[in-house]
Amino acid sequence: MDLMEALRTRRSVRQWTSDPIPDEKLKELVEAAARAPSGSNNQPWAFVIIREPGRLKRLRAAAPGIAGRAAAVILICLDRRLGDETPGTSEYDMVHLSLGAAMQNLLLAAHDLGLGACAIGSFHPASLESIVSLPPHLELKLLIALGFPVSQPDAPALRPLSEVCYFEEVGSDGEH
Amino acid sequence: MDLMEALRTRRSVRQWTSDPIPDEKLKELVEAAARAPSGSNNQPWAFVIIREPGRLKRLRAAAPGIAGRAAAVILICLDRRLGDETPGTSEYDMVHLSLGAAMQNLLLAAHDLGLGACAIGSFHPASLESIVSLPPHLELKLLIALGFPVSQPDAPALRPLSEVCYFEEVGSDGEH
Repeated sequence: MDLMEALRTRRSVRQWTSDPIPDEKLKELVEAAARAPSGSNNQPWAFVIIREPGRLKRLRAAAPGIAGRAAAVILICLDRRLGDETPGTSEYDMVHLSLGAAMQNLLLAAHDLGLGACAIGSFHPASLESIVSLPPHLELKLLIALGFPVSQPDAPALRPLSEVCYFEEVGSDGEH
Repeated sequence: MDLMEALRTRRSVRQWTSDPIPDEKLKELVEAAARAPSGSNNQPWAFVIIREPGRLKRLRAAAPGIAGRAAAVILICLDRRLGDETPGTSEYDMVHLSLGAAMQNLLLAAHDLGLGACAIGSFHPASLESIVSLPPHLELKLLIALGFPVSQPDAPALRPLSEVCYFEEVGSDGEH
């Protein structure tokens, strides 16, 4: 798929068919995510792919944000050995910006492969960490629920460009 | 450009020709960034495009991370009116993940348009904020330095996939 088209047509998808996702496709998504840039190229991430029905069921119970029956869920974790985890530091911000870039690569690749995906930030960390046996150096930051989409959702409302894009300076009144 | 090819061939570019970037291209980059997903679709961002030589010079003095003579710099800011700014909360993390997704859209779009870009997290916030007259509700989070690339840098070393990708669980030893 053309990149600009992918940026325009990617949606957050929350309803999926019951078709499973082949493991090679899931791996391809993680490969795409892992090509994101990161501060000093520290690649402070780990990805855990869940697609066993029993484990998915336990996962759904611990993450009410997963509305539908996702065929797979990918956990995006921070590897604390590679990225500073002290809130309020610029390193902390950079680690999360890097994880956000990895998330976006993953979401775009999913769209390219005909999948629909949705990022979910609402979950019970302790329950989820025990379900996938996360070691202490990995901290769960985000879930990506995935499957083959039932339909293409409408585009979400975007703030007008004049509100978010400025040339040279913003000005004391916060407008152009 | 094909999306998967863009993900594979995008590089952090730090050396540019002296050619200016047309304003329409710069605006297209911000449009791409603003299509990123965000928590509850809050779109907690603002982008300030700098391409006046005098202002770029002052910017470089306040951001030693800009190694070369970028034709333009785009400031990615958090709009505090739209996103929680309390470190240590999951909302704070989500806002930064969203800004990271916007950054990645911008970097990929730049690559598609034949530009080379590099994200820079090292700068003096107060100096930069005064150079572009940032109002208090906008907080500078990241700079993107841009231009037409002199050459295509080599691919950075990636951690092996076996270190960052797990199926079903990680295990207490932190390996597969």
